[in-house]
Amino acid sequence: MINGERTIQRPLRWGMVGGGRTGQVGYKHRTGALRDGTYQLVAGAFDLDAARGVDFGTNLGVAEERCYATYQALIAGETARADGVDVVSVATPNFTHFEITKALLNAGIHVICEKPLFFTVAECDEIAALAAEKNLIVGVTYGFTGHPLVHQMAAMVAKGMLGDIRIVDLQYTHGFNAGDDVGAGEAVKWRTNPATAGATFVLGDIGTHLYYLSEIVLPELKIEKLLCDRKAFIATRAPLEDHATVLTHYSNGARGRLWVSSVNAGNMGSQRYRFVGSKASVEWSDSHPDQLLYDVQGEPNQILHHGMPYLEAEGLKYDRMGGLHTEGLGDAWSNIYLWIAQAIDAKMRGDEAFLATHHYPDIHAGTEGVRWLENCVRSADAGSAWVDFE
Amino acid sequence: MINGERTIQRPLRWGMVGGGRTGQVGYKHRTGALRDGTYQLVAGAFDLDAARGVDFGTNLGVAEERCYATYQALIAGETARADGVDVVSVATPNFTHFEITKALLNAGIHVICEKPLFFTVAECDEIAALAAEKNLIVGVTYGFTGHPLVHQMAAMVAKGMLGDIRIVDLQYTHGFNAGDDVGAGEAVKWRTNPATAGATFVLGDIGTHLYYLSEIVLPELKIEKLLCDRKAFIATRAPLEDHATVLTHYSNGARGRLWVSSVNAGNMGSQRYRFVGSKASVEWSDSHPDQLLYDVQGEPNQILHHGMPYLEAEGLKYDRMGGLHTEGLGDAWSNIYLWIAQAIDAKMRGDEAFLATHHYPDIHAGTEGVRWLENCVRSADAGSAWVDFE
Amino acid sequence: MINGERTIQRPLRWGMVGGGRTGQVGYKHRTGALRDGTYQLVAGAFDLDAARGVDFGTNLGVAEERCYATYQALIAGETARADGVDVVSVATPNFTHFEITKALLNAGIHVICEKPLFFTVAECDEIAALAAEKNLIVGVTYGFTGHPLVHQMAAMVAKGMLGDIRIVDLQYTHGFNAGDDVGAGEAVKWRTNPATAGATFVLGDIGTHLYYLSEIVLPELKIEKLLCDRKAFIATRAPLEDHATVLTHYSNGARGRLWVSSVNAGNMGSQRYRFVGSKASVEWSDSHPDQLLYDVQGEPNQILHHGMPYLEAEGLKYDRMGGLHTEGLGDAWSNIYLWIAQAIDAKMRGDEAFLATHHYPDIHAGTEGVRWLENCVRSADAGSAWVDFE
Amino acid sequence: MINGERTIQRPLRWGMVGGGRTGQVGYKHRTGALRDGTYQLVAGAFDLDAARGVDFGTNLGVAEERCYATYQALIAGETARADGVDVVSVATPNFTHFEITKALLNAGIHVICEKPLFFTVAECDEIAALAAEKNLIVGVTYGFTGHPLVHQMAAMVAKGMLGDIRIVDLQYTHGFNAGDDVGAGEAVKWRTNPATAGATFVLGDIGTHLYYLSEIVLPELKIEKLLCDRKAFIATRAPLEDHATVLTHYSNGARGRLWVSSVNAGNMGSQRYRFVGSKASVEWSDSHPDQLLYDVQGEPNQILHHGMPYLEAEGLKYDRMGGLHTEGLGDAWSNIYLWIAQAIDAKMRGDEAFLATHHYPDIHAGTEGVRWLENCVRSADAGSAWVDFE
Repeated sequence: MINGERTIQRPLRWGMVGGGRTGQVGYKHRTGALRDGTYQLVAGAFDLDAARGVDFGTNLGVAEERCYATYQALIAGETARADGVDVVSVATPNFTHFEITKALLNAGIHVICEKPLFFTVAECDEIAALAAEKNLIVGVTYGFTGHPLVHQMAAMVAKGMLGDIRIVDLQYTHGFNAGDDVGAGEAVKWRTNPATAGATFVLGDIGTHLYYLSEIVLPELKIEKLLCDRKAFIATRAPLEDHATVLTHYSNGARGRLWVSSVNAGNMGSQRYRFVGSKASVEWSDSHPDQLLYDVQGEPNQILHHGMPYLEAEGLKYDRMGGLHTEGLGDAWSNIYLWIAQAIDAKMRGDEAFLATHHYPDIHAGTEGVRWLENCVRSADAGSAWVDFE
Repeated sequence: MINGERTIQRPLRWGMVGGGRTGQVGYKHRTGALRDGTYQLVAGAFDLDAARGVDFGTNLGVAEERCYATYQALIAGETARADGVDVVSVATPNFTHFEITKALLNAGIHVICEKPLFFTVAECDEIAALAAEKNLIVGVTYGFTGHPLVHQMAAMVAKGMLGDIRIVDLQYTHGFNAGDDVGAGEAVKWRTNPATAGATFVLGDIGTHLYYLSEIVLPELKIEKLLCDRKAFIATRAPLEDHATVLTHYSNGARGRLWVSSVNAGNMGSQRYRFVGSKASVEWSDSHPDQLLYDVQGEPNQILHHGMPYLEAEGLKYDRMGGLHTEGLGDAWSNIYLWIAQAIDAKMRGDEAFLATHHYPDIHAGTEGVRWLENCVRSADAGSAWVDFE
Repeated sequence: MINGERTIQRPLRWGMVGGGRTGQVGYKHRTGALRDGTYQLVAGAFDLDAARGVDFGTNLGVAEERCYATYQALIAGETARADGVDVVSVATPNFTHFEITKALLNAGIHVICEKPLFFTVAECDEIAALAAEKNLIVGVTYGFTGHPLVHQMAAMVAKGMLGDIRIVDLQYTHGFNAGDDVGAGEAVKWRTNPATAGATFVLGDIGTHLYYLSEIVLPELKIEKLLCDRKAFIATRAPLEDHATVLTHYSNGARGRLWVSSVNAGNMGSQRYRFVGSKASVEWSDSHPDQLLYDVQGEPNQILHHGMPYLEAEGLKYDRMGGLHTEGLGDAWSNIYLWIAQAIDAKMRGDEAFLATHHYPDIHAGTEGVRWLENCVRSADAGSAWVDFE
Repeated sequence: MINGERTIQRPLRWGMVGGGRTGQVGYKHRTGALRDGTYQLVAGAFDLDAARGVDFGTNLGVAEERCYATYQALIAGETARADGVDVVSVATPNFTHFEITKALLNAGIHVICEKPLFFTVAECDEIAALAAEKNLIVGVTYGFTGHPLVHQMAAMVAKGMLGDIRIVDLQYTHGFNAGDDVGAGEAVKWRTNPATAGATFVLGDIGTHLYYLSEIVLPELKIEKLLCDRKAFIATRAPLEDHATVLTHYSNGARGRLWVSSVNAGNMGSQRYRFVGSKASVEWSDSHPDQLLYDVQGEPNQILHHGMPYLEAEGLKYDRMGGLHTEGLGDAWSNIYLWIAQAIDAKMRGDEAFLATHHYPDIHAGTEGVRWLENCVRSADAGSAWVDFE
């Protein structure tokens, strides 16, 4: 159970690039970072509109002189200070992730970056090498994986409660883009433009969440080959997709199917994960994150609730509200931010032993997400053909 | 609303082949056929064990002399009587459907047959031609499609309430075969043996239900190509599958995905259908057949209940219990049996005008199911490759 | 598992009083009675409109001369026949139950009657004495208690799986009478008029279902005192109620609460039963009759499904569809009708030993329902005061 | 939509009494207060064990010298500082609320207090007078009412979307105290002892949440009389109750029923609210706080989701995560803490105009909760009799 006690040496001095008043994602970062005194928001380049960024940042309690017009200015300003930021979150459109992250690392600043991380695995590798060289952390905000019951599933799989894994069924769909993009806002525009979004729309935007969460639950599973069939139901989004299906063959013989879509009209169920083993299955949805279905073949179905003593230690450790009291996405983000802070703190302390076993969404996780996207696109571009996973 | 009033000239004299004491499917036929006085069970070859068949049949109220040892004897005995059966239901393993149906038709008897109908489209075509020549009806027991809300979905699609159809998501899974087949009963043995089951296990056994129901809801949609990936997680079932995924491209640009499995450990949710259009989606499951989700993008989700005045006429006509009172699979089978009886009655009366517009699961429906299976197997056998639908 | 095999000597010759074309309840009787060949519908006084009754009855397959204008004519006609009816179902407004039942019994005919049985316990006692004298059965159509999982709950309680019973929470509500009764149909009119409905509206119409089902699950519990608070939100229904709450003290110290209403606007959830013990609770709703919640304190919640081998024998015996396949209210009515037929058959055979342990909704069950209504009304009329249960 | 921008002049300097390491409630206060920079935790008397309190407080980032051994020391220390606390939260057992609140107010410090506020209305009135005299705010942590959809319900009622209110159905139950209290922790011990808990256990502990939330949704409704029937299923808890039912007559003729229990074995559904009007009903549960059922009689049931544009302005204003992304109890507490901060800020600024219309759980709300408890106990003590609401 989390109760707010500090688990690191001192609060991290934290800045943001992006995440300003007109977007939706910035508050997720802030509510995730700030509730436990682990981070202190001291600087930001919140907005392309500099004046609005200053107004916004000061409203957040950031000193006016530390509300910068650009990320370059932020780096310049903060590195010049004795009390400059330790870490900066990058909450900007995809196409800027690489250059901003690179610049921050080069300035000696830890980075927390939105997913999908970068456009290519090559870029990821370059950043990974740079981070290693600079002895810095790069965290990725796969926020949903902060929910405690995700780790309950992983523990149950690890204990063999499901038997041999056979089927991985993943879905993240909604209908918010069911209509065309005429008059759409900036957040839609950049996501549907390859120049700003990269090679994918929904695969990267929401599919990477599915992929990373499945990796947490099933760390042993390796993809052998996959097939991706994608489509833009709103034609102007092509070559990017608003709907995609991915079939997967895992090396242990398991089979996967995955569905992402932003044109699933009216669907508010969001994500659904089902992991089927030879003995039992678990199923979880982010829309009711406090409960987990555990289906043992031949027995009554079970509903496990967050915060209850019958859970595995891994499923309880990062519970915040306790049984009977709901947790939300903000609580999950808090855990992600906490785990990244613990990594940064360990890095600062030179505690590589801690880092060797500490789990958080790191540069490797981000890289694997991009690798998966590359394979999906390669399959789709080959006529939705099976491709060996590379 | 159904209230039991007869809609045909006289009750049909009805016989059964198979459906005896040791199996599960026979009662579904009987409870479907008998509740409304549309059929009278007067003859049967219920069991391979002749004595047990007589004991069983007489317990059902069939005269002892009309409890036959074989279907051949049934045909011989019944055709020799002035009051012989009008129609016979075939509730035997798949591999016997063709020969029994053919013999019954040749004897001038209407047929109601379990799905999957026959092994090949060629067999279906042969039977269709024979039925036409003999002026007889062949019905297929796609029991789930008797649920009123299936027809509510069809009516909503036809009225354009969903807009253009984009995505068809179909699932019928359970976990009853998650374990191996050592010591399994006859029903499992014949279903997992190509000689008795045909070229598929779960695709034919449960997948054809998905396919036929989707045809009812979306009669305009045509498959352009599909890809089937199948697998036997219990190796002894190979080359038949206990898990399969099918991706579909429809000629209007819609995309389909379908999942059938009998190794989805612990899953009791059974079937799930979601039809996504440009404006709205509908979703229905046989496990809660009395309600239908209607998701209009940008509006609150709606739950429609069976038997309520706000439904379309097509969704109300065959309601039996009325709003607030549950219907079950038996009620759905009753509708299927009723619709087939109405077809037989019309055929007897020579009322081809009625038959021209009367909907029931007919030889064409059964044939299309087998055609779909052939395409699935062709794709799977080609390395789970895309194949044009033939 | 039920498979349609006859469990009585011969099909019962069955007639109906009421249940004609314009009402909703008649089909529930017919679909319950007829599916298994236990009853043969051979006579009826279906309708106050004699010609419509004949048209309707012959459409059901009843011979024209056995479609009577009145119940008196039915009794006269049928008792004059060697093959006259064995049993008659009474599906008429409440105020006629007593006189029709009495006349049928006096004519030597078994009776199946709608609930609430009669207006007073005195009437019930008179009928019970008459039935005993005539050696006849009186069954009551508490249809919902035919669902197999109701008996699963009873078996779990009997085995002590819940521990000591502490709380009984019962609810049967809907909103179909949320509006006023201007222009309402006959079924509403007679139910809201004390002359034809008796001393209650929703307490008798739907509350008696709750009470009887709770008696089945908790046969040991005795009411010590209760308090009933009732109200007519539509004033024209007064003194009858469209909403009532009943608090109960049981002799073992358990506490009960019950809610019935027909003005719960938009509510389609219907009935909900929760039985809370010192160790665990069970919860069941007729709107999803195939599943049962089993909540053991400190353990994951469990969902039990009908037809599954892990159920108690009592919960499986009268299953009709088997696991994974839904049952509906019609299946439940079939069980009720079967159990009553078995009682009649035993009475005909003089098998009092069978009757001594055979459970079915009998005259005692009907009487207890009326007794409960009398106590409720007494409390309500005393200013919603506590009254000792008499 | 909340995005973290400050809505008050400056962050409030905040202290806590209670809420230490061994309890569960402290983190709810902290996660509620701290995420948006509205409060800064600068002082505390966290623990009866002074050393543990210092260890804990410093771990939270509080300076060691401001981690006090007692609330008296906190008041003395903080009032001696120029930068002393503005406001203190009281998260201690019930019996200490009054004296601590009184002492804080006398020291000129705003108070945020756990519910149930005090033992008697007289105490509430005394505190209200003192707060008025001192020009200070007293807030009460009715955390659940911070959920945005609670205010959506209120807005729908206010707009007349439900018609005339007829039925108020409230439930807050769980099973965590189904077993006896042998070996129970401190939190159970003080709650079941009248000296420390006051005159009630579950009525005060969880019932006051139901009552206050219903007041928010239905501000016009006034209780005319009520009847409370309570019981201790674990006898050692008597005279306090672990189960209670309350029936209510409202002055407009509406009827209420309420159930609180901590012996509802295995129940994890927590709170359920249903407000029934002449046209429609709304239903909400804290266990799925992001959705709201809207049942219009005669129309499909509707599910409204948090954060969606179709909601009323009041239902959207305090949304934090946006549609599709879950909110939890922590988000609700954040809103409560925000609203109280806005009140304190206005009080500091002397902005009585703002306060005149600003809604937050204030001393009046807390008083009404205690008044309701007094009436419940009076009824229960009179033999569960009807009492006029005073």
